[in-house]
Amino acid sequence: MTDMGSAEHALHKRAYTKPDGRTLLLYGRKPIVTFGAISSPSGRNEPASHFRWHPLRGEWVVYAEHRQQRTFLPPPEYNPLAPTTDERHPTELPAGTYDVAVFDNLFPTMTASAQSPLPSITETRPGVGSCEVIVFTQDPHSSLGSLSLAHLEVVLEVWADRYRELGSRDEIQYVFPFENRGVEVGVTLSHPHGQIYAYPFVPPLPALELRHQTDYYRTHGRGLLEDHIAAEIKDGRRMLYAGEEAVAFVPSYARYAYEVWIAPRRPSPSLASLTPPERHDFARALKTVLLKYDGLWDKPFPYVMVFHQAPTDGQLHPESHLHIECYSAYRMPGRLKYLAGSELGAGVFTSDTLPEVKASELQRVTVHVDG
Amino acid sequence: MTDMGSAEHALHKRAYTKPDGRTLLLYGRKPIVTFGAISSPSGRNEPASHFRWHPLRGEWVVYAEHRQQRTFLPPPEYNPLAPTTDERHPTELPAGTYDVAVFDNLFPTMTASAQSPLPSITETRPGVGSCEVIVFTQDPHSSLGSLSLAHLEVVLEVWADRYRELGSRDEIQYVFPFENRGVEVGVTLSHPHGQIYAYPFVPPLPALELRHQTDYYRTHGRGLLEDHIAAEIKDGRRMLYAGEEAVAFVPSYARYAYEVWIAPRRPSPSLASLTPPERHDFARALKTVLLKYDGLWDKPFPYVMVFHQAPTDGQLHPESHLHIECYSAYRMPGRLKYLAGSELGAGVFTSDTLPEVKASELQRVTVHVDG
Repeated sequence: MTDMGSAEHALHKRAYTKPDGRTLLLYGRKPIVTFGAISSPSGRNEPASHFRWHPLRGEWVVYAEHRQQRTFLPPPEYNPLAPTTDERHPTELPAGTYDVAVFDNLFPTMTASAQSPLPSITETRPGVGSCEVIVFTQDPHSSLGSLSLAHLEVVLEVWADRYRELGSRDEIQYVFPFENRGVEVGVTLSHPHGQIYAYPFVPPLPALELRHQTDYYRTHGRGLLEDHIAAEIKDGRRMLYAGEEAVAFVPSYARYAYEVWIAPRRPSPSLASLTPPERHDFARALKTVLLKYDGLWDKPFPYVMVFHQAPTDGQLHPESHLHIECYSAYRMPGRLKYLAGSELGAGVFTSDTLPEVKASELQRVTVHVDG
Repeated sequence: MTDMGSAEHALHKRAYTKPDGRTLLLYGRKPIVTFGAISSPSGRNEPASHFRWHPLRGEWVVYAEHRQQRTFLPPPEYNPLAPTTDERHPTELPAGTYDVAVFDNLFPTMTASAQSPLPSITETRPGVGSCEVIVFTQDPHSSLGSLSLAHLEVVLEVWADRYRELGSRDEIQYVFPFENRGVEVGVTLSHPHGQIYAYPFVPPLPALELRHQTDYYRTHGRGLLEDHIAAEIKDGRRMLYAGEEAVAFVPSYARYAYEVWIAPRRPSPSLASLTPPERHDFARALKTVLLKYDGLWDKPFPYVMVFHQAPTDGQLHPESHLHIECYSAYRMPGRLKYLAGSELGAGVFTSDTLPEVKASELQRVTVHVDG
């Protein structure tokens, strides 16, 4: 067991190996005690994944053949992310005193042990990397936004721990936590959880953002996002949260309706470099946004939430400014935003409404984030 | 009226101005005669659109505020794309002898007359450009793939005409025909139709492909796609059509399940530079693919189909090789492919199955493309 941080706010961490060889990590403010066996649901296939190079786009595509069989809308009585209560039907997790759990995905897109693929007319490489599931809470009826601030800080510390640990592996160049939430974005399990992908390269979209951040940093000696945040605060029309250490806003260049970015004010390059006060305020900003989302139409708001942070490629990244980007599935009540010709084929996002209008809708939602 | 091409295969074209000021173009193999008034559905708002610069991605986002009110699942008895039969409820099109119609979108994302936007903390520019609707046939129950080869060649000539005409405008740098098909990709009208966007810049994704094509062309003195097509033909496992002049295949680096590319063998830079034999065979390749799609599960197959071709930016583009990219909505029967964290936030496409497997499913669908 590892103690992380000072005694009063220690984060306990304990590592286990599942019967099928996968790793399970349990995290909590209290010492970790588990009850019953460490188990796995049945049905693991040996993953076979590889990357192929898309020469016109200059990017890797990953193929994982086993994944077609993955869980899809399982019957409601079985929740593989809840603690096991019936040893005949084990879930991914034991009963225990933990707050947050992380384990290797049963159907990973990338794995540490991926083999060399067969030769092809296209450049290929093994699907080396990591795909972890992070379970935010033991409560299947909760949500990331309705966790207490103290619990949300644990989640942020776990994400930071994964950044450090996965990022320290030679083969990993980018650690990418994200949450897909809602059937509208294809999520099959409603138990609050996210995923952490670790790629063996810096993926195209973070790389694109970092390239523009680097150009700006070289020209101005300051961060691009740092200066944009200052401009958003001064403008004010799209701000959702302006704390001492962290902010949340609909960016003036939002591509999605209700797109929200969350960032520390200081250009902290990654989750791992947040100070405790920054992490606390970042948690508050995140909770504010997620409660506003759910309060907007008084129902769970579907979104894709991603972290962009510094690569773990051994380079210094002074241009990198940690931030969350939240993409909304809906463009107005009951109307999904479909990505189609212009977005998927040209890369030009089209929006029905102005960021200022969507921001004002979210500003009007009152939320209580204490506790 | 304009006659395009030789007498026996002349394409007739006639231009009209709608009562609300929009342009209507009718095309056909027979001289164009219309019956009844040229009219417009009610409800046009003066469009107000502008671009804003996304500084981290380095791309323009387009905002068109009026578009939230656009037609959404209209009652089945009203089809704005069918010829008008009741003058009290005019559609977009008159009755007449035309094969294909093109008109300015009632709710355009970009317009020729867009005004300068208000100052912002983000760089802005007027939403100058063009958004046209192309109606493939007068028959509301048809589809692009079930048109006769001769009719499909008319559609290809119309797309080429729009490439030339829109591309000749000073403000237009990229002409982008596409078809979104099916409720799964958000399409509200089932009458066979597509759209033609004309952008005042080369959009990010075509620009990305052209950049890699340029690098390859400079190094090898041949086209990247030209060489890839030769490799696909030699490999053979993913070929769907290999004609004298045109080919269709699932690329070895397909990002979507059932993704198909269609291209002339010769690296023709655009639709406008296809020779008549190339256009004929390209039509045959396209019809083959679309019939295979619909035959796969014996139901209309939803897709996003886009054309990538040379910009109309006044530069020579010897690297450009015209091609269609078709993106499928489903990854297997009844299971949609959701773009989520990895695709939308990292830019890494994850696929459940190999291109070879999906190609073989499409290869097994027998189709008849003559006539």
